[in-house]
Amino acid sequence: MSDLSDILLVVIGNTEIASIPGISVAGASPELTKFTPPADVEYIFYGKPLSIDAIPVTPEGHPTPAIITKASYELANFGILPVRGGSILPPQTPYIEITAKPGKDFRFQAAIEVSDIIQKGKMLGMQLEKMGLGELVIGESIPGGTTTAQAVLLALGYEARTSSASPKNPQKLKEEVVEAGLKRIGLEKLNSLNPWKIVSELGDPMLATVVAISLGFRKRVVLAGGTQMLAIAAILKALGENLSRFLIATTKYVVNDPSASFVETAEEIGVDFWSAELNFSRSSYKGLRDYEMGYVKEGVGAGGSVYLAAKGGISIDDIVRKVEELYSLLEERID
Amino acid sequence: MSDLSDILLVVIGNTEIASIPGISVAGASPELTKFTPPADVEYIFYGKPLSIDAIPVTPEGHPTPAIITKASYELANFGILPVRGGSILPPQTPYIEITAKPGKDFRFQAAIEVSDIIQKGKMLGMQLEKMGLGELVIGESIPGGTTTAQAVLLALGYEARTSSASPKNPQKLKEEVVEAGLKRIGLEKLNSLNPWKIVSELGDPMLATVVAISLGFRKRVVLAGGTQMLAIAAILKALGENLSRFLIATTKYVVNDPSASFVETAEEIGVDFWSAELNFSRSSYKGLRDYEMGYVKEGVGAGGSVYLAAKGGISIDDIVRKVEELYSLLEERID
Repeated sequence: MSDLSDILLVVIGNTEIASIPGISVAGASPELTKFTPPADVEYIFYGKPLSIDAIPVTPEGHPTPAIITKASYELANFGILPVRGGSILPPQTPYIEITAKPGKDFRFQAAIEVSDIIQKGKMLGMQLEKMGLGELVIGESIPGGTTTAQAVLLALGYEARTSSASPKNPQKLKEEVVEAGLKRIGLEKLNSLNPWKIVSELGDPMLATVVAISLGFRKRVVLAGGTQMLAIAAILKALGENLSRFLIATTKYVVNDPSASFVETAEEIGVDFWSAELNFSRSSYKGLRDYEMGYVKEGVGAGGSVYLAAKGGISIDDIVRKVEELYSLLEERID
Repeated sequence: MSDLSDILLVVIGNTEIASIPGISVAGASPELTKFTPPADVEYIFYGKPLSIDAIPVTPEGHPTPAIITKASYELANFGILPVRGGSILPPQTPYIEITAKPGKDFRFQAAIEVSDIIQKGKMLGMQLEKMGLGELVIGESIPGGTTTAQAVLLALGYEARTSSASPKNPQKLKEEVVEAGLKRIGLEKLNSLNPWKIVSELGDPMLATVVAISLGFRKRVVLAGGTQMLAIAAILKALGENLSRFLIATTKYVVNDPSASFVETAEEIGVDFWSAELNFSRSSYKGLRDYEMGYVKEGVGAGGSVYLAAKGGISIDDIVRKVEELYSLLEERID
């Protein structure tokens, strides 16, 4: 076991966007997505969720990527602090409170108020910087979050397609939802909005929280996630941040996703990325082998957790073996 | 300015005990004591409280010891994270949530439930340990907390007298209140209670939170406070902890308090202490000179903050000057 002196923040949130049928598979049903963010961090800490009695799965039964984060965490011994960035439910763990307000459906109204999140998030980043961390790794869990990310990227001028936790990425539905949001604001007005106003209108509380923390923490920040972290990098760039202190750490499932545009958009924004070359193709379990088919892909800082573990000398094979072991302990498995 | 890579947790809580007239001066009136804990940390971060429009003062107008903590924080640049350990109100800052339940009046019922606090507090301590901190400094702000501390110390077998933020320490009233609590439990039953049960019956949520964090964080812990931290050391000892990894950092006002028994009780428990030799006798302000008369004494990690600043090479004189400067910026002063 390595001792890293590192930390992964997992920012958990909810947005009403996840309730639109077909948008999110981060939960067995849209109603259950409200339990997914707290259950993810509870599972990592305690081996089982406490807010609900089963680990988050997709409707087909594929396990939350928190299983990868937990494997890395157990092997590499870095610290994890959950941050409540708009989750409906608080996790049954110690956590840092930034906001308890979930995001609203941006088709009909502004998604979030940002001023309180900016103040608290920046202050949190400042305090964490004082603790001597070399870099801060920040992951997320927010069902429906790729749709809000796509809306923000589009509003910032990027023709991005974001990934999905389903191999059948609902791009058409996402685009309709995003378009409805953009129409509400008015396309002519969109260009005059400053970046925080765009986040407020079309984003979600996780995006705002991660941006604010990243502004307060002035050293290196690793954005642990997929296309949602591209939206965060794009916001930071629009706010005038130099992106050279940022790295996106994600998984190969996001980078190689043919339904999304991760690499092109990362290059367009100008942010570096690192990809965890996980491989579950030899797993005994269909639930894990299906990751190779594009199920789940990323989330709960999975890619960033592998990045941290790699820093601690843990190999991908060690993590894959540990995930296999953790999966064998779950009651709800696709064998 | 020094860069410490250190952190001060400020655990904020409330107990109904503070509403007993005459028990607490941590607020201009008993009703205002509910604002004191969040206002203390808001003042440190933002230079003014946000939950209420004036900094916490005693009924005579003496300023909160948070002014010392803020002076050390600004000079030494360590990190501060507020921890909600039973405060009625959340602070308008980022903070770590452990419990939102204040302590009940132990004369009539058990003060707190401890199981949830134990689980979350230990987990928090574990995560903080993984972040590579050499030591963890923990302060508190809980009006009425010296009375619950005295009850716990007595129940654990120590004939302790705790300090007060008033030079007219209401020892007689405290003893009556404590005795009512002990009588409710029954003196014969008291000896059979385990330490956590004693905390649950007679303590407060701050005590439980600090003990739990200290159990999870296995390295050096600096308990930043006065007689309340003696109660915590006594609980930890009763739970079987080796106290050699603990240090109490407090102020000379507590150590020299003739109405309390700090030194004797510390020796009886067997915990080391460090004392901040502050001296406000030459201050331009009566509000600060009165610290030398026994007003306020300690709180919000004041002594521990001076300990941290000393580690960073900041002298007592620098801190005294900075406190003078901060006090001059306050609108509510005793000149």
